Amino acid sequence: MSSVRDDFLTANAEFASKFEDGSLPLPPARHALVLACMDARLHVEKVLGIKNGACHCVRNAGGRASDDALRSIVISQRLLGTKEVHIVHHTDCGMLTFTNEQLAARIKADLGVELPPGRDFLPFPDLDQSVRDDIATVRGSPLVAPGTQVYGYVYEVETGRIREVK
Amino acid sequence: MSSVRDDFLTANAEFASKFEDGSLPLPPARHALVLACMDARLHVEKVLGIKNGACHCVRNAGGRASDDALRSIVISQRLLGTKEVHIVHHTDCGMLTFTNEQLAARIKADLGVELPPGRDFLPFPDLDQSVRDDIATVRGSPLVAPGTQVYGYVYEVETGRIREVK
Repeated sequence: MSSVRDDFLTANAEFASKFEDGSLPLPPARHALVLACMDARLHVEKVLGIKNGACHCVRNAGGRASDDALRSIVISQRLLGTKEVHIVHHTDCGMLTFTNEQLAARIKADLGVELPPGRDFLPFPDLDQSVRDDIATVRGSPLVAPGTQVYGYVYEVETGRIREVK
Repeated sequence: MSSVRDDFLTANAEFASKFEDGSLPLPPARHALVLACMDARLHVEKVLGIKNGACHCVRNAGGRASDDALRSIVISQRLLGTKEVHIVHHTDCGMLTFTNEQLAARIKADLGVELPPGRDFLPFPDLDQSVRDDIATVRGSPLVAPGTQVYGYVYEVETGRIREVK
């Protein structure tokens, strides 16, 4: 049995014993969605000072505006009233360290699975440009509401600071 | 200009002024990945007591094991050494409130976009079953390492408690 599971259950019992937010509504109070990387050093709500119930938080490898991130944004906007998207990538990101070809070769070597050519794991060679690319993807999607405000940031894992990318 | 953006920058300046974790390594210390819903009331690291640098955190609408979540899991396992997946869905989830047909009709009415039939936004009618389905999807993927430990939970937004789903 996983020690991580045991630690989650123990820590959650402590968390629940002091819980006072049981009547928060489903729609995010700040009408905003954050799209950020899954990195273990990026505790999004803490880094950005987000209160419980305030913002949707979508995370994946890289914080990319993938098709699935757009699925989440559509549900967030159409059903739960969010009107802003804030994209957060970060320094020392794993997505800067590989190419699709390298990862496909690794998967074949480790798992024996041969991927079809062109399978895109969404790595990027330039951090600021990756933020700009994802801002453009969100702004350009016909499934995102016209007029949606889209902001981009880089989080510095070395300093704890975010800086805006335009 | 968004007041959310301004609040993020202000809160982050305070966060960064007390930041002491600047030398954490990229690979997650607990070798685990959490896959959870984007819900605004589910601050994953706080609810589960996750320390900075400990676990990858992937989030999307529903906390579903989508193709993009599998992309993140592959990168997490192959490049950054995680060996466990912990899936967290929650009570009062928006994914329990709609069907694909209803959302497609809403998108057409609001945005004028006609989606191809069968576009799946991954809603679910049964919370515990959705966790079991996603456990099975992760376990069954040829891109996930054999022997990966996969756990599932439901978070109760009313009480702050998690309970395991098997």
